[in-house]
Amino acid sequence: MSGFDKPDAFVDSQDPEIVREAKKGVVEDTYSFTERDIILYNLGIGATAEQLQWTYEGDDDFQALPTFGVIPQFHASGGISLDWLPDFNPAKLLHGEQYLSIKAPIPTSGVLVSKARILEALDKGKAAAITSIIETREKSTGKLIFENQSTVFIRGSGGFGGKRSGIDRGAASAANSVPKRAPDAIVEEKTTPSQAALYRLSGDGNPLHILPEFAAIGGFEKPILHGLCSMGIAGKAVYQTYGAYKDIKVRFADVVYPGETLITEMWKEGSRVIFSVKVKERNVNVLASAAVTLVDGAAKAKL
Amino acid sequence: MSGFDKPDAFVDSQDPEIVREAKKGVVEDTYSFTERDIILYNLGIGATAEQLQWTYEGDDDFQALPTFGVIPQFHASGGISLDWLPDFNPAKLLHGEQYLSIKAPIPTSGVLVSKARILEALDKGKAAAITSIIETREKSTGKLIFENQSTVFIRGSGGFGGKRSGIDRGAASAANSVPKRAPDAIVEEKTTPSQAALYRLSGDGNPLHILPEFAAIGGFEKPILHGLCSMGIAGKAVYQTYGAYKDIKVRFADVVYPGETLITEMWKEGSRVIFSVKVKERNVNVLASAAVTLVDGAAKAKL
Repeated sequence: MSGFDKPDAFVDSQDPEIVREAKKGVVEDTYSFTERDIILYNLGIGATAEQLQWTYEGDDDFQALPTFGVIPQFHASGGISLDWLPDFNPAKLLHGEQYLSIKAPIPTSGVLVSKARILEALDKGKAAAITSIIETREKSTGKLIFENQSTVFIRGSGGFGGKRSGIDRGAASAANSVPKRAPDAIVEEKTTPSQAALYRLSGDGNPLHILPEFAAIGGFEKPILHGLCSMGIAGKAVYQTYGAYKDIKVRFADVVYPGETLITEMWKEGSRVIFSVKVKERNVNVLASAAVTLVDGAAKAKL
Repeated sequence: MSGFDKPDAFVDSQDPEIVREAKKGVVEDTYSFTERDIILYNLGIGATAEQLQWTYEGDDDFQALPTFGVIPQFHASGGISLDWLPDFNPAKLLHGEQYLSIKAPIPTSGVLVSKARILEALDKGKAAAITSIIETREKSTGKLIFENQSTVFIRGSGGFGGKRSGIDRGAASAANSVPKRAPDAIVEEKTTPSQAALYRLSGDGNPLHILPEFAAIGGFEKPILHGLCSMGIAGKAVYQTYGAYKDIKVRFADVVYPGETLITEMWKEGSRVIFSVKVKERNVNVLASAAVTLVDGAAKAKL
């Protein structure tokens, strides 16, 4: 069941029972997909009919947008049990950060297997911060395609006696401060009122993103766009501006409502592009501490 | 392989070889679907995130829009061989008319089997007009869910010695003339520039609807919207205005380009609603001879 080539899960708590529970298992999930799923994802993050490389399977350069890498792992990541946390309430869970590393060319169809486990459980006092690591491999060959790290905050589940700050996870936990100068590039994209309704068909069916009553329970005035959808839209802007990248990391700073306009500001710093995303209509920063690492020599070569 | 409870195919030609070829086979195709496919179809014909009965599988009234009935049969219908026609060229094929009869409540997931055969082959002189009939049944029970009749014109394939006009197919071939009075109801809906890119994920992947070079070969200035997508948008307008119907018939009079606005004009005539659709931007009639037969006593009861 395991198969990870990384050291054991790092679970940072003084409570042996919590350590035992957290380390308990690897969640495994299989994701089968076709070119149709690739197009559906690309459309879900705003690819258009004219961008044939993203919306027409017959195009010579047909490809998934790079952030597709968060899709195959989604159910494995979400399947990790957190009910061993004190006062655990799933309604109090917020997606905090996402890191995606693209390890190999992304196939446009096939079967992938993702294995998820907890990497780190931090005690933030009022909240717990749980980071999972998920490796996604091609089922037939075992080839590693993606590594994801996902951090969730569970409000009201802190105070379990764990450490406040964790291991250095490199790019996955980097702060990626925005330079003081004006952005080197800016891309603006208006989402549609049905953006979340479309995006959710790629696997995250949480009613928070479509059902007003459910969004209200979560404290939102209306259904919110998936954070990973905003990440995809910004990731597309970076890809169009600077070319292919091998990893991408974001922190979810605030919510986006479907129909709002996202402004992605970018700063090229050597082989990295730092970026930041705000909602135009409300002037609110929604993605922060964000960056990609460009593929060597990629800068716009392919586009 | 057969299983039709209708009389033999009516193939209207004097040429015994054509009659033999046309009668040759029943094309069978299986369509497996989930609620995700229902939502994808509904979004493809313009359902919005607020219309939860069409875009959220957890809604108490979750349902397929009625014109979904053209989807499960699509590949069976398209699989009918027409290469026995003189000078057959698939690039010369135009979808002329579509008739859909809804025989039972539409399931939101399952496996359906469609059987298609030629009903009528008419010789229009310069063109052949081929009407196929397709029955779609629930695989597990054999229950009839949909009957479709689809007429295609193949330019340049006439002159094979068949009759010019065919059998009376009732509502399926009715002319449905528009009354002289002003419409009883009008619904306007703007399609999106990516409408065809989204709609084609429901099964009709013809590059005519996305690839500019292919559309040019067909004589169009750019990719055109699927005729069945326009039918779906108009059928949604009728459903929202007058409630459930048990059949719908349209004639495809001209093309729609993604991004254009469709105006559906409706006239209620007893238990039928005659409708007509034009493109606002070009004032061109695109769906004609169109009508639905309302479910008895349905008028708006459900909506």
